[in-house]
Amino acid sequence: MDERVREHADVLVGWSARIEPGDDVVVDVAEGAHDLAVAVAERLGGIGANLMVTYGSDEVTRAYLCAHDGVFEASEGELALFENADAYLRLGGGRNTAATADVDAGARAAYRRAHSEIREARMDTDWVSTVHPTRSLAQQAGMAYEEYQEFVYDAVLSDWETLAEEMARVKTRLDGGDTVRIVKERDDQPRTDLTMSIADRIAVNSAASVAYDSHNLPSGEVFTAPYDTGGEVFFDVPMTINGRRVRGVRLVFEDGEVVEFDAEQGEDAIEAVLDTDPGARRLGELGIGMNRSIDRFTDNILFDEKMGDTVHLALGRAYDSNLPAGESGNESAVHVDLISDLSEASRLEIDGETIQRNGTFWFEDGFEA
Amino acid sequence: MDERVREHADVLVGWSARIEPGDDVVVDVAEGAHDLAVAVAERLGGIGANLMVTYGSDEVTRAYLCAHDGVFEASEGELALFENADAYLRLGGGRNTAATADVDAGARAAYRRAHSEIREARMDTDWVSTVHPTRSLAQQAGMAYEEYQEFVYDAVLSDWETLAEEMARVKTRLDGGDTVRIVKERDDQPRTDLTMSIADRIAVNSAASVAYDSHNLPSGEVFTAPYDTGGEVFFDVPMTINGRRVRGVRLVFEDGEVVEFDAEQGEDAIEAVLDTDPGARRLGELGIGMNRSIDRFTDNILFDEKMGDTVHLALGRAYDSNLPAGESGNESAVHVDLISDLSEASRLEIDGETIQRNGTFWFEDGFEA
Repeated sequence: MDERVREHADVLVGWSARIEPGDDVVVDVAEGAHDLAVAVAERLGGIGANLMVTYGSDEVTRAYLCAHDGVFEASEGELALFENADAYLRLGGGRNTAATADVDAGARAAYRRAHSEIREARMDTDWVSTVHPTRSLAQQAGMAYEEYQEFVYDAVLSDWETLAEEMARVKTRLDGGDTVRIVKERDDQPRTDLTMSIADRIAVNSAASVAYDSHNLPSGEVFTAPYDTGGEVFFDVPMTINGRRVRGVRLVFEDGEVVEFDAEQGEDAIEAVLDTDPGARRLGELGIGMNRSIDRFTDNILFDEKMGDTVHLALGRAYDSNLPAGESGNESAVHVDLISDLSEASRLEIDGETIQRNGTFWFEDGFEA
Repeated sequence: MDERVREHADVLVGWSARIEPGDDVVVDVAEGAHDLAVAVAERLGGIGANLMVTYGSDEVTRAYLCAHDGVFEASEGELALFENADAYLRLGGGRNTAATADVDAGARAAYRRAHSEIREARMDTDWVSTVHPTRSLAQQAGMAYEEYQEFVYDAVLSDWETLAEEMARVKTRLDGGDTVRIVKERDDQPRTDLTMSIADRIAVNSAASVAYDSHNLPSGEVFTAPYDTGGEVFFDVPMTINGRRVRGVRLVFEDGEVVEFDAEQGEDAIEAVLDTDPGARRLGELGIGMNRSIDRFTDNILFDEKMGDTVHLALGRAYDSNLPAGESGNESAVHVDLISDLSEASRLEIDGETIQRNGTFWFEDGFEA
């Protein structure tokens, strides 16, 4: 086994999920993530955690959803499994990123709605989502396989403690602020000028560890849960949503809700997301990507949204970690991220003060306020 | 997809497990059984059952067991999952039948003991175990891949109703009988002369369907739960137990327990089984193989024990289906089958009456009592 696979498992189990002896851990293995599953099982065995392994196969999901009449039920047993779990480790990495491309969007949304309680229980655990580099993901990224492995391991095996310190500065600004404004004025794309409230919301310093309320490996973003969004925004980073290619999405918000939208490609995929439930038309997340070891877009949200000099907004559910105790955030069965590149002709403001301009933060050399 | 994979899924879900709309079904997928999992998911979706998929990877299991200190716990969540499940479909078919060969036998037994309650809950569901034909299993059988596929599908896609009628005749004899005696006198192997009580035990007509209390696909055996075993028995069919090659096992029983044993190969694997717990030294099953569409030994217990003109005995736990209500049978964390070929120089007696001689039953042409 490639020694980097074991190092990945070490970071996942140790730094990210903080697994302890006796923890009940559910590990979900995508079709192409077998080797990482073996390394993770070895690590969990060494710690003395309890292991249960589920199979996260896109082809199995597709077959099930396509054959089903669309009236889904949740299983009590599956709910109990996650209610009792201490941690959930999702090992992504499939064999075909388009494996569910022909699944009816309505069936997909109905399934998600029926499983929302199970999903909540899963997200109440110390969950972490990562990916094993597969040829399919390399292809999606437009990269050779070995080149892609380098890319993934560079991102996963980062110096998380140092990045966490840098991100803490942005978290402090967001926590103290009331309003965020994102402005981008490029000649080659629709204008972005979006304002949202973040008052009383708590930003998460997402340093790839549950100890930071961060659930992705790699991570490297600071995110919060905005509300009362108004204005327009253009997402210039292409991506794949529910197996569909999406590019050039424009959203217009009024009073917190999407009131107009279009896309250069994959508009129906966006429409299906927006139609899932009322919460899918509101934002659940504003994230500021700060991980510069992710140096290119690879059409994989786990990496793209963390890339330095980007910002992403998610339609749908807000994370509890952004909410003061007792306060509820936006609720939805979906959480779909869309990304905008802020490296040029852009600025990010908090309460009227520019904190990032053209991809440079106020605390970095070269910043002009 | 090979159409036979879909037919296999149809027989498994329909005839074998009798899945109904709304059933909670846990499907366990071995490393090489992906295609069958897709076909089963399609069938379950069509019925409107609820699906959860687990990953039964031998390599993951090995990594976990080898790294663990050996003091295992069961997870409450996993127990709840199976307590709530209506059915459990185990899709075997790995990529290396020796994948767990170097796992310490003590660790394996300790793990099984810690998971006995979970296993009981799983066996209280409408569980069915089958295999998808893989190259690894073909190799184990000493067969070409396509030849092995033919073999598996011939066995799986049998005429189960007709076989069930034939097996019903043997069940009637076993249900009415008190004592079974197995005698084999071949010059080239140790003598077999074993007697066991079956009084008040209920034979199962194992016609590959939960409707017959039968949980294997393929099946084709009649089995019961013997006790008070005495005498000696030689198992001439080679097999693989816990990843170890075992051949020529001889057991001597007194007062129901193994008091002496040896093997031409793999004796330590047998010893580890016997040392699991006290119940592992007693028999949990006597099975009479009656499936003549299984026409050769393939070193896979699922098929070998069903082969016509064989008998098998299992060390360890008895199945509840063989016991009158309220009576408890032999208990153990293991259930390990050993097989003897009765096609030559052999006879099977019930209460002194020969019911099979040299592989021919009393109701078949050519039988001499």
